[in-house]
Amino acid sequence: MKNEITLEKISEIIKAKNNFYILTHIHPDGDAIGSAYALAKAIQKMGKNAKVLCSNPIPEKLKFICNYVKNQKFESETIITVDLADTTLLGDKLEKYKNKIDICIDHHVSNTNYAQVTHVRENCAATCEIIYNLINTMDVPIDKEIAECLYIGIATDTGCFKYPSTTAETHKITAELIKSGIELAKINKNLFSVISKQMLKIKQMIYDILEYFFDGKCAITYVSLNMMSKAGVTDSELEGLAAIPIEIEDVQIGITIRQKPGGINKVSVRSAPGVNANELCALFGGGGHAQASGFNLKGDIPEVKLKIIDAVKTHFGW
Amino acid sequence: MKNEITLEKISEIIKAKNNFYILTHIHPDGDAIGSAYALAKAIQKMGKNAKVLCSNPIPEKLKFICNYVKNQKFESETIITVDLADTTLLGDKLEKYKNKIDICIDHHVSNTNYAQVTHVRENCAATCEIIYNLINTMDVPIDKEIAECLYIGIATDTGCFKYPSTTAETHKITAELIKSGIELAKINKNLFSVISKQMLKIKQMIYDILEYFFDGKCAITYVSLNMMSKAGVTDSELEGLAAIPIEIEDVQIGITIRQKPGGINKVSVRSAPGVNANELCALFGGGGHAQASGFNLKGDIPEVKLKIIDAVKTHFGW
Repeated sequence: MKNEITLEKISEIIKAKNNFYILTHIHPDGDAIGSAYALAKAIQKMGKNAKVLCSNPIPEKLKFICNYVKNQKFESETIITVDLADTTLLGDKLEKYKNKIDICIDHHVSNTNYAQVTHVRENCAATCEIIYNLINTMDVPIDKEIAECLYIGIATDTGCFKYPSTTAETHKITAELIKSGIELAKINKNLFSVISKQMLKIKQMIYDILEYFFDGKCAITYVSLNMMSKAGVTDSELEGLAAIPIEIEDVQIGITIRQKPGGINKVSVRSAPGVNANELCALFGGGGHAQASGFNLKGDIPEVKLKIIDAVKTHFGW
Repeated sequence: MKNEITLEKISEIIKAKNNFYILTHIHPDGDAIGSAYALAKAIQKMGKNAKVLCSNPIPEKLKFICNYVKNQKFESETIITVDLADTTLLGDKLEKYKNKIDICIDHHVSNTNYAQVTHVRENCAATCEIIYNLINTMDVPIDKEIAECLYIGIATDTGCFKYPSTTAETHKITAELIKSGIELAKINKNLFSVISKQMLKIKQMIYDILEYFFDGKCAITYVSLNMMSKAGVTDSELEGLAAIPIEIEDVQIGITIRQKPGGINKVSVRSAPGVNANELCALFGGGGHAQASGFNLKGDIPEVKLKIIDAVKTHFGW
């Protein structure tokens, strides 16, 4: 990638500047939030100003992370994006920054190289792995709070070390983070074991309407605005649900459609190794990783479902 | 613990002998099977004879591990147990060895010190962590197959690195195992992510009929024989489902009723810390642990449900 620079170079830029806005993607997940707040905290520990900006609110479960950084009032001098594959994912509130991004740090293979300088490592399971290396390069000690942010990013983006993206390096970094004294049992319980009554209700609905196609090789389900209001869940809580269809035995393509206000649907596609979800999503103008990708599509849910099933049939020859 | 010896000492004993039986516990889990086969394979790589013995068959999902050791015919000279807290857990077929155990390697705090010499490390998340250190001490290179056995033990005993027993050391060892080239994605998918279409169906039904009582402090659900036949699942697949109600936010008592042939119901009770499930179960003649207990009760499901709800109300004063 042109404009690619090393972490040493990014460290030098950060050391030379004083006021940073750190931007991340809409519907922020653990990795978006973890990498943004870990970097903000590290920059603040260097005696500089840093603020995290995101178009959507932080999910309830992760709100405690916001307290890890000081609320500083300042004008931005340098804009960094983390875990942001493309500027379209900045969302309404941050769109104004789309041509002003100085540094991009990301792990998405689909990164569109939109920043002045870029550091993309697609072999990292989480952007938090890169931020861990950057903070070490900047010589900032990783305290308990930074370690918690980074752990949350790594643990959520790997499905608690379960997904194929997990590497030896992922576990090596995690071992180091645990040594920083993070409350592992509490965090893991909060992230992976407790489910709210509302989330259970929406899961129940998702299971009820899940359908199989092509001899069970494709599973598809959806979350409509009506379902969300019935269950009492907000959009930001639904990130993890995209994994449900692909976790079913013999399913090779798992699709989750999430209806958004204004007739738009966010479609998440997960696939088994050897089946390229990214290629399928590219047909609809989307992208991501080979096994986890997505796109947006206008229309009623039944209509959107049909279009996707058609594309799966044609593209994979099923 | 008296008879406690170091891994160096165990390594010396193994080097001095030639014929080993390795015994593990009934209803073997990933840690029992992983530690037994990893050690057997390491001993065979030293040019010696080793065989794994267990009273119960190995679960279908883990059967591939059996191919990792050679089938050797010999008479035992040294008997080693792994992951075996007490000789009562040897089961019928291995009971004859209960007074003949030379070496015990285990991580259970409840280990009853039944062997000639013992190495118990209760701060290890899995017996496989200890076997990893032992194989290194014996100077046997950890190949891909040994690494897979050890990874399976560690990953299953920690709920894929989710349980409070997980430590920095757990992740550090795992990083080393992954470097041995194990097929991580395949193993994790097989162990943790795949849910059969039948199991998804029964889960869907369980969610559909789940009810809350006492302001959501108690959640109760059931699996009838009719539901099992509709979903196409067998009783042995339902063990893990007892955790569903207690994992719901703010639930203090989670109850699962499983109907058995002949009008009997197996009731599983799980509770939050501070709420004693064992005491509740004792009222029905059952028992177990403070946070995980159970009992049997005759009757139709609605009748059984009412009796339990009544008991919860009276016993906890809700």
